[in-house]
This record gives sequence, C-alpha cells and structure tokens, in this order.
Amino acid sequence: MAEVANGEQSKRPRGRPRLAIDRDAVADAVAALFAEGGYEAVTIVDTADKLGVSRATLYRAVPTEEDLLGILFERCTGELTERTKAAIAGSSDPGEQLMAMIRLQADAAVSMRSYLPVFFGGAGLPPEVYNRWRSWSRHFEKMWVGVVSANMERGYLDEGDPTVTARLILGMIIWVSRWYRPREQITSEEIADTAIHLVRLGVAPPRDRRTRGGNATTDQG
Amino acid sequence: MAEVANGEQSKRPRGRPRLAIDRDAVADAVAALFAEGGYEAVTIVDTADKLGVSRATLYRAVPTEEDLLGILFERCTGELTERTKAAIAGSSDPGEQLMAMIRLQADAAVSMRSYLPVFFGGAGLPPEVYNRWRSWSRHFEKMWVGVVSANMERGYLDEGDPTVTARLILGMIIWVSRWYRPREQITSEEIADTAIHLVRLGVAPPRDRRTRGGNATTDQG
Repeated sequence: MAEVANGEQSKRPRGRPRLAIDRDAVADAVAALFAEGGYEAVTIVDTADKLGVSRATLYRAVPTEEDLLGILFERCTGELTERTKAAIAGSSDPGEQLMAMIRLQADAAVSMRSYLPVFFGGAGLPPEVYNRWRSWSRHFEKMWVGVVSANMERGYLDEGDPTVTARLILGMIIWVSRWYRPREQITSEEIADTAIHLVRLGVAPPRDRRTRGGNATTDQG
Repeated sequence: MAEVANGEQSKRPRGRPRLAIDRDAVADAVAALFAEGGYEAVTIVDTADKLGVSRATLYRAVPTEEDLLGILFERCTGELTERTKAAIAGSSDPGEQLMAMIRLQADAAVSMRSYLPVFFGGAGLPPEVYNRWRSWSRHFEKMWVGVVSANMERGYLDEGDPTVTARLILGMIIWVSRWYRPREQITSEEIADTAIHLVRLGVAPPRDRRTRGGNATTDQG
C-alpha cells in the first residue's frame, strides 16, 4: 500500500530523513486503526503492519505516534476547509451555502466518524496537534459564522448570536459521528435534510417570516 | 469531605465490605479529577487524596477505577433522567416541554462539561459502564423522541424522522460541553435561548405555518 522509496538500506547523509512513505497511505492506515480501536489503537507498530512496511521504515519517516495523528489531522482538516470553501463559492445565496455546508459536514461526520469528534473537540490531542487544531478551528468557525450571519441578515435564520448559532449547527452535525450506526441505515443525506428542516432553512420566503414574531407560543406560557 | 464511617480499623466479618464512603462525595471528587485532567486523571490514588481518606479505605469501598467512573455515571444519568421527567411533567404543551428539556440539557452541558460527552458518547467507557450506558441512553432517547414527535404533530417542528431530529437537537446541546469556555461569558440560558430560536420553537402559531411549504427557497435552486 505504501510507496516506499527504493534504496532505503543504503547510507544517506545525516540530517532530516526523506519521507519514504506516502502520507495519504499513512492517513488511511491511521484512520483504519482509529475505526478499529479508537485513539489508543494508533501505534507505530500497528500502522507499520497495516502499511506492510517495516517498523524501522515507518519510524524513520514518522518518528512518533503524535506525528501519525498529525498526518491524519492534516488531511481531515485540509479536506474540510477545501470542501467548505467550495460550498461557499458554489452559490451566492447564503441559504444555499449553509445547506451545502450542512450536507458536506454530515457526510464528513459519517465517513470520518471514528476521529472527527476527537479533532473537533480538541480534548486529549497531543500538544503540538492541539496547537494546530486551535488555529484551524478558529479559521473554520469563522467561515461558518460568516455564512450564518448572512443567513440572519436575509431572514433565513432568526437573529441571534451568530457565533453561538454556528457552533450549535456545527455541533448538531459533529455529534452525528457519535450516534451514527451503519445498521440503522440512515444516510448522511437524510441526516442533513433533517437538520436543514429542523432549522427551517428555506422553509419560508426571506422577508415574510419576520412579521410573525408576535405570535410566539412562548407568549402563551 | 467524605463521610468515612467510624471503626474502620476494627475487624469486620469477611464478605462484601460496607460502603464506608459517601457516594456523592466520591462523585464530586471524580468529577473534579475529570475537570482537571480528563478520563485518565481519574485514579483511586488521586480520588483518595481529594477525599482526604486513605487509599486502603477507598479501595475497600470502590475497588476499581471503573467503579469510580460508575459512581459518577450513575449520578449524572440519574439526575438527567429525573430533571427531564420533571420538565415533561411541568407542562402539557409539548413546545413548553421541549424548551424546558433544552434548557436543562444546556445547563447540564455546561455544569457537567468535563464528563458529559464521555457518558453520552459511550466511546471508551469500561464494558460494565458501557452496558449501563446503552440501556440508559435508549431510555433517555425515548423520552426525547416522544416529545419531539408531539411537537411535530402540533406543527411546532417540521415533520421529519423524530429519532434523527431528537438526536440532532440533543447533539447540538451535548456538543456545548466541548466548546463552552467560562471566559467567553456566554451563559447556558443564552445558549438554550439561541437553540430554541434556531429550531424556531414557538415562533409561529402551530397550524398556520404548514401552509407555506411551497415557498421553500430550495425550489429556487
């Protein structure tokens, strides 16, 4: 599976060793270990076994378990950033943008379910990965808050704190990773549609809705 | 802090030892350790230190770390079940019930933030606690699904799969545990209100809303 460079046995000058392993293959192996046994199952030994390379080869390219986690983290966050940017670029309507973001996030919550909540939660990450996570998550949240704000301006979403609202929507979808079970046969598309219905995105025409605030059932209580 | 029974040094007949430690004090100590260093910080040694009792005394009452976790789990889930039942009993209107449930869940997400996602996610729990969690979470989810279904029947929530919808709302609030930071000075009440606004509970009169389905912005895309 891994693209191991030739000539490994020969002597190389001292210094930073050449990355002789394909990072994507490493990310796949680490993701598979995560799926099998969680964070603790991610070891150099098991990753090397999965890749079909010697431990020495893997150690030379990826010295610590923290580095293994870092490789998967990098791919996961990189992919989410790119897909989210594409969702925003795909439409000029903030409602459409947010729906596309919910759909891709639901898809990621299902396909990356063994590690996505670990990366999004930040808790328990090794310090070096944690610092990258903090910087990434601030940037990622900013994209969400921007689109949520635009939805509030158009009246697609009720007005409220856009940061809290963005975190609530994002959290609703991230938590899918925890309850999703393939045997229940609920697709990520169905989950995304249910979420979109729940926040009533695109249910009523933008301006119309705001006039009915006075009819709140809370007024009755 | 702990209520340690007197006469511990004296000989007792063989058999199951008397629980000489107050379970609530143990739960408090375990919760504090969780808050300080997460799951891995919960050890018999540190719990004994926190309780101000000898390790031997604690070992006699709570033989394993799994048991420590079990005591906190029991209190956390017991409290949530009781408070949710009370929220449902507190009103005959399903909208009011759901709002009360969102409020208490947001409060729990903040006050129990160091361990609530661990208990709700089930992942990484010791087998014995995991089995109790499965049974409890099925029962807890059932209460939520019932109230969500009633909200859909009244038109307070758009129709959709009530189980998926209940999990999305619950997940949105559980995930608060992950992003809540006291220094941001966002209260659990504000979070709950934002969530209630987001799903537009009590925004429009029950029956009125359903007639506007044809105006969906998705039709424009």
